[in-house]
Amino acid sequence: MIRLLGLDPGLADTGYGIIEINDGKLNHLAHGSIRTASTLGTGERLLAIQKSVLKLIRRYRPEAAGIESLFFAKNITSAIPVAQARGVLLLTLQKAGIPAKEFAPQEIKMAITGSGRADKRQVQELVRRLVGLDEYPKPDHAADALAAAICCYHVLQTEQRIAKVTHV
Amino acid sequence: MIRLLGLDPGLADTGYGIIEINDGKLNHLAHGSIRTASTLGTGERLLAIQKSVLKLIRRYRPEAAGIESLFFAKNITSAIPVAQARGVLLLTLQKAGIPAKEFAPQEIKMAITGSGRADKRQVQELVRRLVGLDEYPKPDHAADALAAAICCYHVLQTEQRIAKVTHV
Repeated sequence: MIRLLGLDPGLADTGYGIIEINDGKLNHLAHGSIRTASTLGTGERLLAIQKSVLKLIRRYRPEAAGIESLFFAKNITSAIPVAQARGVLLLTLQKAGIPAKEFAPQEIKMAITGSGRADKRQVQELVRRLVGLDEYPKPDHAADALAAAICCYHVLQTEQRIAKVTHV
Repeated sequence: MIRLLGLDPGLADTGYGIIEINDGKLNHLAHGSIRTASTLGTGERLLAIQKSVLKLIRRYRPEAAGIESLFFAKNITSAIPVAQARGVLLLTLQKAGIPAKEFAPQEIKMAITGSGRADKRQVQELVRRLVGLDEYPKPDHAADALAAAICCYHVLQTEQRIAKVTHV
């Protein structure tokens, strides 16, 4: 049995997803989003995010985490708060001794659907099926976080496979 | 007497400066940079930055901090690690109960030289004189951090002046 955490960083809204793998079977444990009020200062919001993630870590004790890396298409200004939140998440995982794997959105799409150019709906549908949910995970940030957790599992599997081959 | 911390965030190199103000006179206490090795993972580097800043806070006990905000002229990719480090610094100040004031580079230039378009050398020369150093503070990140601390002092003075006027 292994438990994995997925995170999709954001200052206003950080998505999280937790999955458990038993004998190769994926199970959904939790997903949701950590929201912080825009009335708070940036420091307060970052501290609130850290506290919520620490609660998740204490409750579910994940062994590794997948976290979305930043992808700047157009909006640079909106990327600053995301990167600040991401820094706090990476710090928090590091302090908790949880190895973090960083994935670009295309890598996550690739791991889930077999194509780096799949659309959002295709990814969500496969995430839903892979973790055995009846409905699309909501909100989008949480679905992306679950996808990052699944991507993390794929990478761990690949690493194990390589380790086996190498040590034969 | 009041002590102020200035920070110029960066993942590889975070500048810091500490000043003390006695009866309106600025004094330089310390400046330097927190460097992290590129061989470390991002989480490890962020944790190293946090530990170093906490050491500075414990040693100098500043009452407030000035921190440079992000300014993206050209290089977006290089801004991501800076923003991640900045998130960790804001979190650390928040946890330590130190109010953080964020300043755009132009605001810092304005506070130090009276012009938002002053060049780097002019700012450094005035910082040097204002805090009573014989030479330019080195490296540049540390000079920028001292400038942010001085800018923080200017803002606190202005706030006090406004408070006095309002409460007459």
